Amino acid sequence: MALVRLIEYGDAVPEVKAVYDDIMRTRGVDWINNFWKALANDPALLVRTWQNVKQVMAPGALDPLVKEMVYVAVSATNGCEYCTHSHTAAARKKGMSDAMLMELMAVVGLANETNRLANGLRVDVDEAFKPKSQ
Amino acid sequence: MALVRLIEYGDAVPEVKAVYDDIMRTRGVDWINNFWKALANDPALLVRTWQNVKQVMAPGALDPLVKEMVYVAVSATNGCEYCTHSHTAAARKKGMSDAMLMELMAVVGLANETNRLANGLRVDVDEAFKPKSQ
Amino acid sequence: MALVRLIEYGDAVPEVKAVYDDIMRTRGVDWINNFWKALANDPALLVRTWQNVKQVMAPGALDPLVKEMVYVAVSATNGCEYCTHSHTAAARKKGMSDAMLMELMAVVGLANETNRLANGLRVDVDEAFKPKSQ
Amino acid sequence: MALVRLIEYGDAVPEVKAVYDDIMRTRGVDWINNFWKALANDPALLVRTWQNVKQVMAPGALDPLVKEMVYVAVSATNGCEYCTHSHTAAARKKGMSDAMLMELMAVVGLANETNRLANGLRVDVDEAFKPKSQ
Amino acid sequence: MALVRLIEYGDAVPEVKAVYDDIMRTRGVDWINNFWKALANDPALLVRTWQNVKQVMAPGALDPLVKEMVYVAVSATNGCEYCTHSHTAAARKKGMSDAMLMELMAVVGLANETNRLANGLRVDVDEAFKPKSQ
Amino acid sequence: MALVRLIEYGDAVPEVKAVYDDIMRTRGVDWINNFWKALANDPALLVRTWQNVKQVMAPGALDPLVKEMVYVAVSATNGCEYCTHSHTAAARKKGMSDAMLMELMAVVGLANETNRLANGLRVDVDEAFKPKSQ
Repeated sequence: MALVRLIEYGDAVPEVKAVYDDIMRTRGVDWINNFWKALANDPALLVRTWQNVKQVMAPGALDPLVKEMVYVAVSATNGCEYCTHSHTAAARKKGMSDAMLMELMAVVGLANETNRLANGLRVDVDEAFKPKSQ
Repeated sequence: MALVRLIEYGDAVPEVKAVYDDIMRTRGVDWINNFWKALANDPALLVRTWQNVKQVMAPGALDPLVKEMVYVAVSATNGCEYCTHSHTAAARKKGMSDAMLMELMAVVGLANETNRLANGLRVDVDEAFKPKSQ
Repeated sequence: MALVRLIEYGDAVPEVKAVYDDIMRTRGVDWINNFWKALANDPALLVRTWQNVKQVMAPGALDPLVKEMVYVAVSATNGCEYCTHSHTAAARKKGMSDAMLMELMAVVGLANETNRLANGLRVDVDEAFKPKSQ
Repeated sequence: MALVRLIEYGDAVPEVKAVYDDIMRTRGVDWINNFWKALANDPALLVRTWQNVKQVMAPGALDPLVKEMVYVAVSATNGCEYCTHSHTAAARKKGMSDAMLMELMAVVGLANETNRLANGLRVDVDEAFKPKSQ
Repeated sequence: MALVRLIEYGDAVPEVKAVYDDIMRTRGVDWINNFWKALANDPALLVRTWQNVKQVMAPGALDPLVKEMVYVAVSATNGCEYCTHSHTAAARKKGMSDAMLMELMAVVGLANETNRLANGLRVDVDEAFKPKSQ
Repeated sequence: MALVRLIEYGDAVPEVKAVYDDIMRTRGVDWINNFWKALANDPALLVRTWQNVKQVMAPGALDPLVKEMVYVAVSATNGCEYCTHSHTAAARKKGMSDAMLMELMAVVGLANETNRLANGLRVDVDEAFKPKSQ
């Protein structure tokens, strides 16, 4: 049970309905997931977050599947159950296989391990890795 | 200054030298970065970590550049300065442009934001996102 | 099911009962929540933690509602389900509306996003932001 | 040295200059801090992030000083050096005294402690804290 | 329900069965826990992770019970429900009492608190704590 | 440069001096490290934090060296530079060798890795690991 009411389409103000419509149209689905229904308690937050997601996750210098996998990697690192489920589902829809998911998790696990080895031993950044004077 | 001595090639035991040689050969470089010199205080840890990195970061279901970018994403999320520098350098070497780095960071930032919105509002996972009975 | 037994009032040693009584009196409630019942397995930890909470969350330079909202912000950032529920309930009791909760989450989300943008791009702290020589 | 070039006003494209102008006007300052100069490598990210910050941190159900302190609390929890400095400076400008900062940190520290006690002992959420059926 | 199928012994390829056999033999148990059944979707990841766990958790400069308690401390800090349960169970099997668990959690909580006080106030490391020139 | 003034012994109020004296006496040193000098801006926070540290880190069900190593493990996981330095120094003083530090980091790294594998694949806790009805 979320900490706030989930706003269903029928109960939504026009501003929220417009976002719901855009989500369904953009994603080619006929339902709204709970995340957006919770944000809808603050229409400005809903509008802003959806615009951000829509803009950031669109094709660009990186392809959308790579972006979804990065999203899963961050969500797994942070332990976000909701986001891990929702973005794994989205990544599968865009073509992520089980083999790709397992490799993704292997990288995520390894990065989390070596992050702590480097941080825990307080290893100094090598000069060669530092950006050149700009 | 790291919490342990950095083991230079000339001071290394044969087991460590063998790993250093393999790192330089695999990466096509002629120097060893500080991370490995710190791990070399525990040769078993050095051997194991290098084997893990070598295996996980090799081409597979995901391509090596995608893996490097996922590594950067995790390191940025965890705030690991060393790993962010070293893996950004590695990703650039494999072809990551500034435009790709900026988009990667945009996804990392957004994922960290929505992870907290979902966790903070305690949004339940939608049935449609849950894996089917297996 | 917690990893340790929950100590009910009737089963508690006098030192624990005294803390339970003080919690109920201070908060104006007639029950003890599970967090304290778990800590009661180590009476010294229970006494110390309750004294800390009582002292820190009391009115001071910041008002108690602001403190509760900061508590919720940290708990959401860390993904602590228990603390998010318990401190959201406490904040509501002290006057936090749904609108305030939603805005709080918007700030928490945004801060988590920009924390990673700043950390991920390794942006140097501007001189103007650094504390003056003291 | 940031991982990307810092874009100075004189080198900026018009879209970036417009954001810089709005930042200076909104904040009543005559300089741009490094965070925005780094984001300016991706004008769309700069525009979006500034709009988000401007909207979220404006007066609303919570007052701007409370919002800044929540920002500091999250940044301290995540260990973001840049954001801790920049938002502490912003909070001081809005009236945060040393006494308020110290109390804020006391709450942040305590929340981080009890988050781990609750998570580590796997304490179940009390029924009384759960939101009522909605 | 895990995001991938749990591979039972009877359905496993020989490489996976060999790891399962080694896990049961090493730990003196006659069943395999879900973590390994999930990793088995990627036999190379399973083999690698088990070898790492077996090597790292073996007696060495630190005794195995101390290692298990450190594992619990990290898992509690990260909020990993699965690992907190599995490693608390392992630590109990190796002799951890309730009193030891409670004291462990007290240290974990306190460290998480003071980490944020030090990070949040941006306290500089004392010269006396820094490693000597090496 | 810390965000608040560091309070030197000569500038301290009697309540703070008393804590400084107790720290030096308890630890057998003749100086005060920066962490306490920063907390001294809020004497109540200083008193409370020192009492907590003194109580929690004293010999009990766990020995003080194990506690210091757990402290280092948590600090490395959270990326706290100050605490990693100060508690590594404290652990060395209590007998931690380089070999013990390296093994400690190996456990910390591995736990951070498997925490994400378990969280990322959303593995369900095995019934056998769950605490029995209490």
